[in-house]
Amino acid sequence: MKPEVPGTERGWDAGHRALRVAVVGATGAVGRELLVLLEEAGHPRGKIACFGRAAQSIEIGRGIPFEVLPIERFARADFVFLCTPSEVSRELAPRLAEQGACVVDLSSAFRMDPRIPLVIPEINGALLDRSPRIVANPNCTTAIAALPLAVLDRAARLEEVIVVSYQAASGAGRAGLSALEAETRAAAGQAARELSEPSPFPATLALNVIPGVSEPDATGVTGEERKIEGELRKILDREDLVVESTTARVPVERCHSVAVHARFARDLDPGAARGLLRTAPGIVLVDDPHGPRPRECASSDPVHVGRVRAGARGARSLCFFAVGDQLRKGAALNALQIAARLPARG
Amino acid sequence: MKPEVPGTERGWDAGHRALRVAVVGATGAVGRELLVLLEEAGHPRGKIACFGRAAQSIEIGRGIPFEVLPIERFARADFVFLCTPSEVSRELAPRLAEQGACVVDLSSAFRMDPRIPLVIPEINGALLDRSPRIVANPNCTTAIAALPLAVLDRAARLEEVIVVSYQAASGAGRAGLSALEAETRAAAGQAARELSEPSPFPATLALNVIPGVSEPDATGVTGEERKIEGELRKILDREDLVVESTTARVPVERCHSVAVHARFARDLDPGAARGLLRTAPGIVLVDDPHGPRPRECASSDPVHVGRVRAGARGARSLCFFAVGDQLRKGAALNALQIAARLPARG
Repeated sequence: MKPEVPGTERGWDAGHRALRVAVVGATGAVGRELLVLLEEAGHPRGKIACFGRAAQSIEIGRGIPFEVLPIERFARADFVFLCTPSEVSRELAPRLAEQGACVVDLSSAFRMDPRIPLVIPEINGALLDRSPRIVANPNCTTAIAALPLAVLDRAARLEEVIVVSYQAASGAGRAGLSALEAETRAAAGQAARELSEPSPFPATLALNVIPGVSEPDATGVTGEERKIEGELRKILDREDLVVESTTARVPVERCHSVAVHARFARDLDPGAARGLLRTAPGIVLVDDPHGPRPRECASSDPVHVGRVRAGARGARSLCFFAVGDQLRKGAALNALQIAARLPARG
Repeated sequence: MKPEVPGTERGWDAGHRALRVAVVGATGAVGRELLVLLEEAGHPRGKIACFGRAAQSIEIGRGIPFEVLPIERFARADFVFLCTPSEVSRELAPRLAEQGACVVDLSSAFRMDPRIPLVIPEINGALLDRSPRIVANPNCTTAIAALPLAVLDRAARLEEVIVVSYQAASGAGRAGLSALEAETRAAAGQAARELSEPSPFPATLALNVIPGVSEPDATGVTGEERKIEGELRKILDREDLVVESTTARVPVERCHSVAVHARFARDLDPGAARGLLRTAPGIVLVDDPHGPRPRECASSDPVHVGRVRAGARGARSLCFFAVGDQLRKGAALNALQIAARLPARG
C-alpha cells in the first residue's frame, strides 16, 4: 500500500475509491499508466475493470494481475477512461455516457468539439462543475506547454507563442518504446532483436532527431502541430492567440520537452514570471541552468519549468524550457485529475 | 585517391594544392575533419603540417600517418587553420598572420571583432577579396541556420528569427562523442567502459535532452545562444535583426539541427522560398515530410533544409527545419572554403 499523499495530491480520495472505474485500451502505454496511478491512489482492484482488444492479463505492482476483457462485456461504471484510438472513442464515448458513466476521453476525437470541454484541471477545471458527460483530455505536448503558459497568460496576457518540441518515444505508445530500445541496443553494437510490432517511426530514432511528429497536411503543418495550436487556444480560452510550432521526435524514453518563446500584451519580468511559476499548482520551477531534462523527470507528476529568461523581442517577450512526463501530466495523470474533480453521479 | 569532384566543389584546386598548410589543434574532432577534407581534396601530405599539445600521430585514410608537432616547431605556412581554444587563437593568430600566413580561426576569439571578417563564403565571401590576414569561422549552429536564412533574407528581408537547436555530441569534440558512445552502451545494458576523458556534458546525454548548450550569463542566456544571436547579425550584415534562440544538446553523434521560425519585412510564399532554397549553393532542399534528419546527414557537406511552411503569424512568417554536419559546414568545411577563396599570398 502506497502512502496516502500521492493519492491526495492527485485528488483521488475515499469517495472516488468507492466508485467503479473502467479503463478501455488498458494494455497500451497510457492505459497501463492509469492502472499504476489508480493502484498508487489505493483504488480497490475489484472496482477496476479493464478492456482491450487482446484478452490478456496485466501485471501492475504486486497485486493479482488485471484481467483484460473484450468491450462487449462492459457492464456499468461510474468513470470510464478511454485510452483508445479516436475512431473507437468517437463510437464508444456517447454510448457509455448514455449508460450513465462519466467519460474521460484521452484521444483527439472530441478535443476540438465545441460542446465538449477540453480540460487541464489547474487551468480550466471550473468547466467540470457543470457535470459534463464527456470530457476531453488534451494532447500530451499541449498539456505540458499549457500549464506554465496559463500562469503567465493570467499575469500578462499571452499574445503569441512559438512552441518547439523534443518528444519522447513513448508518445507513440509501447511500440515506440520497444523500437527505441531495440535501436539503442543495435547502436551499442548488440545483436538486433526481433520486434513484436514494427516501429511506429518513419526512420531510426536512436541517435537521431525526426522532425514532424505525425503526418503533415497540404500546407506542411503536421497533425501534432495543429493539435498544439488549436488545443492551446481552446484550453486558454483565447481564440485570438497566435500559436506556431515545430514538433520533432528525439531518442528519449519518457517525457516531452518544449522550448517556448512567448510574447505578451504587457511587460513580464523574468523574476516575476519565476515567482508566479514557483507557486503554481502542478509546476516545479527548476534552477539548474541545464534543466529540466526528460531523463531525470521520467515518472514524475509535475511539469518542470526552467531556463526562464527575457526574450530578445522587448520586455514583453519571455522564453522558457518545460519538461513533463507525457504518460503522466500529458495523459493518464491529467485524466485521473479530471475524473477526481468531476462531481460523481453516484 | 578520391575523385576530383569533391575537391572542386569545395574550391580547393591545383593552385591550393601547391601551398603549405598548417592545422593547429589537429588532434581534435575539427582538426581531424580538416585533415579528412584536405586528403579528399588531394592535398599532398608533405605540404600539411600538424600541430597540437600531445606529440602523437594521426591516421587519416590509407596514407602514412600525420605527425603532430608542438607549436614551437612551427615554421612557415601559406594557410593556417586554428582549431584551438579561443585563448590560444587569440595569442597565435596575430603572430602567425605577422609571419605572412592567411589564418582561418575556428574559435570564437575574433568572431565579433569588428576588424575581422566573419565569413560563410556563400553569403559574404566577397569580404575575402580584401585579403584579410585573419578570418573568423562562425559558430557551428550559426553557420547551419545562416545559410538558408541568408537566401530568404535577400528575397524578403528578415526582420525577426527564432532558432531552436538540437545539437549533436560532437559539438563538444571527441570527448563528447566518447561520452555519448559509452552512455549509449550503458543504456543498452552493456558494461560501462572507462572513459579516457570525463564527459563534457553536465548530465547523461544518452536518452536525454540537455537544455542550455554552454553556460548561461546573469540573464540566463547561454554563451552559445549569444553566439547565434550576435553572429547571425554580423554574417547577414543586419545589426537591427532580432534573434532569439534556445539551444539544447540531444543524443546524436554528428549534425546539428535547428527549428527556425522567421518573420520577414515582405510576404514570402513557402513555394517561392522552396524555389530559392532549391537552387542556392551549399543547400539541399529535402522533400521528406520527416526530414532532414541528423543521422542521415552525417558526414555530408551541404546544409539540408526541409519542412518549409508558412508560419501562423501572417504571410510574412515562415518556418523550416535545417540540418548540417557541424564538423563540416559548421566548422572544417566552411574553414576550407574560406581558405579556398582567399587570394593566395604566395
